[in-house]
Order: sequence, then structure tokens, then C-alpha cells
Amino acid sequence: MPKTVLTSGAFDLIHYGHIRLLEEAKNHGGPNAKLVVIIARDETVKRLKNKPPVFPENQRRALIEALKVVDQALLGYEDMDMATVIEKVKPDIIAVGHDQDTIEKMAKKAIKEKNLPIKIVRIGRFGQSNLDSSSKIKRKIVEDLRTTY
Amino acid sequence: MPKTVLTSGAFDLIHYGHIRLLEEAKNHGGPNAKLVVIIARDETVKRLKNKPPVFPENQRRALIEALKVVDQALLGYEDMDMATVIEKVKPDIIAVGHDQDTIEKMAKKAIKEKNLPIKIVRIGRFGQSNLDSSSKIKRKIVEDLRTTY
Repeated sequence: MPKTVLTSGAFDLIHYGHIRLLEEAKNHGGPNAKLVVIIARDETVKRLKNKPPVFPENQRRALIEALKVVDQALLGYEDMDMATVIEKVKPDIIAVGHDQDTIEKMAKKAIKEKNLPIKIVRIGRFGQSNLDSSSKIKRKIVEDLRTTY
Repeated sequence: MPKTVLTSGAFDLIHYGHIRLLEEAKNHGGPNAKLVVIIARDETVKRLKNKPPVFPENQRRALIEALKVVDQALLGYEDMDMATVIEKVKPDIIAVGHDQDTIEKMAKKAIKEKNLPIKIVRIGRFGQSNLDSSSKIKRKIVEDLRTTY
């Protein structure tokens, strides 16, 4: 039976590091694994990062679902309700990023409460250290603009 | 016989508009069309836009090839040699963007010189007018950063 891997994120400014992380997440599910990605709502991004995303949630979702590695991309819930997500997606594995401590805690809590056979795995960060997060990319863009004009 | 559609671009900051344009390009080839995308070299981007891309050419290429709609992504030639690209890819159709007049001219010249049966089609620009080009996205990022901090 192919395994379902669940992962999540804002995915605002997409870069090659995202592809590598999504591939790494999917690999945890073994052959023929299915990768489901939860896209953070605009309201959730605003609350957590104190600013709105560059791209609206529908476009962020559609872009992630347009990737070969992704089988399905779904919008999250505004209160990041992990129990509802787990019930809906029925994952075998939840893959959390290096900066997703809150999500890991919520996943652990939901799994424990219902005694679910779900494995949590950590996925790493990728590559060029100055281009591995949207915030850093934004800073680089600003710096590039400053030095050019 | 499935048709091969060729298109090209820098694809530095990927957004949903790119997906729509690539889908539009591929649709011109009809059922089972193959979409080949030429990714502009870092040197070409520097020369044309007077600044380097945010992401290096290998990452820009890999990200485009990671899209479901794309069958193959290849790095371009530093002198944007359209005749060589055509010889290599053997497209039935070349799709050019609304801002790709230079590429259209070069394609027309190469097609005429060798009397090739290649059709050139124009593809549109997509959606939200403030988010349909990398330059506009960069400006929005800078504005967002200014108003947040």
C-alpha cells in the first residue's frame, strides 16, 4: 500500500530549495508515495510573519500543485487545526521543516490524543545558505536593487 | 505525431502567471504536445537586464523542469543563438511572450533562412497586473518591506 506523506508551508517565493525539500519529504514514504502539501492561509501567514504574503493563497496553492513531486495541494485552516488536517489527509508520515517547531508540536499532540500510527520526520534545509528561505531571498532582492539603481 | 512547442525565458522569480503562460504555450501544440523550455543563461540575463538574476541558471532550469507542464528545460546559449536551439529541439511551434520581440525576430530570421515549417505564436500576460513580471514582484517585495519595518 503506497504511503501518504503530509507536509506544509507558506510557499510564497518558490525556489529550487523547496523542490528538494518536497522530494526529500516524499522519499520518506518509499516507492509510489503520495505527497500532500498544506498551504498556509493568507491570514495565517499574516499572523505568524506580521506581514501578508506576496502572493495570495490560491496562487500559492496552484503553483505548488503544478509541481511534478506534488500529488495534491490543499489550503490550510486559519487556526492551523492539525487534527482536522490529519483526519482529512490520513497521512502515514508528517514531514516537518527545520523551522516548523510549532507544527511539529501540534502534530505530536494530535497524534497522541487519538493514538494514531503516524510517523513524524524532520526534513533539512537546502543548499546555498543565502537563498534557503523566502525572507533571505527578499533581502537579496532588496540588496540587488540597491546596488543596481 | 505529437507536436513539440518551444518557449523561453529567464524564469527568475516563479509565480503562478508563469504556469498559466507555459500551459497556454503547450496548448498550442494540441493533444500530447511536448513542451521544451529554454532557460536564459546568467550572462544573458545580466546583459539584457543590467543585473544578475536572483537565482543561478542551474537552479532556474531545475525548478522549471520540476513543473508538471514542462517536459524538458534546457539552458540557452550565451549569444541566444536561435538557429542552434531550433536545430537541437526541432520544434513545430515557437511560443513567444508579450515582451519577447527580440526573440520573435530571431526566430523568424532563423525560420526564414532555412525555410522551416515552424509556426510562431504569441502568448498573453496573466492576471493580477501588479504581479505579472519579476520586476513588478521585486518592487512589491521592496514596498512590503518598507511598510512593515
